[in-house]
Amino acid sequence: MQLYHHPFCPHSRFVRLLLAEYGIEPELVEVRVWERKPEFLALNPSGETPVMVEEHVPSAPGAAIIAEYLDETRGLALGDRRLLPHAPLERIEVRRLVQWFHEKMFLDVTEPLVRERIYKRYMKSDQGGGPPDATALRAARANIRYHLKYIGWLAKARNWLAGDRLSHADLAAAAHLSAADYLGDVPWDVDEDARAWYARVKSRPTFRGILADSIPGMPPSATYADLDF
Amino acid sequence: MQLYHHPFCPHSRFVRLLLAEYGIEPELVEVRVWERKPEFLALNPSGETPVMVEEHVPSAPGAAIIAEYLDETRGLALGDRRLLPHAPLERIEVRRLVQWFHEKMFLDVTEPLVRERIYKRYMKSDQGGGPPDATALRAARANIRYHLKYIGWLAKARNWLAGDRLSHADLAAAAHLSAADYLGDVPWDVDEDARAWYARVKSRPTFRGILADSIPGMPPSATYADLDF
Repeated sequence: MQLYHHPFCPHSRFVRLLLAEYGIEPELVEVRVWERKPEFLALNPSGETPVMVEEHVPSAPGAAIIAEYLDETRGLALGDRRLLPHAPLERIEVRRLVQWFHEKMFLDVTEPLVRERIYKRYMKSDQGGGPPDATALRAARANIRYHLKYIGWLAKARNWLAGDRLSHADLAAAAHLSAADYLGDVPWDVDEDARAWYARVKSRPTFRGILADSIPGMPPSATYADLDF
Repeated sequence: MQLYHHPFCPHSRFVRLLLAEYGIEPELVEVRVWERKPEFLALNPSGETPVMVEEHVPSAPGAAIIAEYLDETRGLALGDRRLLPHAPLERIEVRRLVQWFHEKMFLDVTEPLVRERIYKRYMKSDQGGGPPDATALRAARANIRYHLKYIGWLAKARNWLAGDRLSHADLAAAAHLSAADYLGDVPWDVDEDARAWYARVKSRPTFRGILADSIPGMPPSATYADLDF
């Protein structure tokens, strides 16, 4: 299995966490989506990461489609630990939260943070490169506080974000937070419940791959890989 | 069952078509998302249509989540006519196309068309109201040609858009096209295969509700409700 991804694309990070939970080690192929390479556009005309490619299977574009496919082909084998719960009503709640993090938190927080602070370092000026936009960063850093409080509120009420058990919702929230955390942009002191929940997710062996990521010339925040932050 | 929708929101139209295929007649509650009413935000914090509300079930926000829920709770009963096919590989293809229409075609075509030509008529100036933006309309009208050709290419190769049978993919594409068609913004002469495929979808009894929609003071294009256009 191959995963076309970017190490700091939060949707790709979600799929890496998910594959690790299934015990699958994909071959990782790094994509810089702003280069709009024809080979990658042929694989996914929308030009976005992640894309999963498995032999004899049509390429699966996007975190949502990959997650549904993995649940359908491997989910039942996890039994009680299934990451998209069995009951339709619980599935609504898990999918609702995943959509919230992948769309709303992405737009409010991780898209601007990752674009301005990471992707722009690699973009040429005609690809949108240049110095970070201070206004966009300021907005993202204000927005993350609300998302962190919401995560804390869920974690306090429910143990895991969507209910009693770890689900796609935890992996999605953690994927987005982890990208911001690398950059030192998560104000952990805002919400102790969110911090304690993230410490639990981050301590899972399946998180190791993501904690080993690094950008040449831009080391992670001091607490990024620290399980006891 | 209640569906919070707007008659010209393409994602809401998709759900109305889907519910009709399942033989469900929801109570329709019209929402003007730009008013950001607290009652609606309580139902769906992201503030977007559609939202499905069924007794004893958490409210389901968004076309994708509603479609998955309906498939899980009613899909099997359709047997051979199941709208999200049974095999995981076929499900990837159906979901890929649905995502393409709901995200890419929406961004390129129906979001600007519907916003500029319909929603803005009802928005106050502090809600973003005003005359249509000619540049946005020109771009949308150029973009629809490519989407129409892609639909034609799929329809010619496959009978229905994702394969041998009607699926979510056909309903999604038809929902977006129908909103543009009301406005007279579909250049049907660009692709005969797309036109013939749309004529087949539009002739289904489940399409009647949508063809009866109208905006006071803004009648539909001459061919909108014409099955033999």
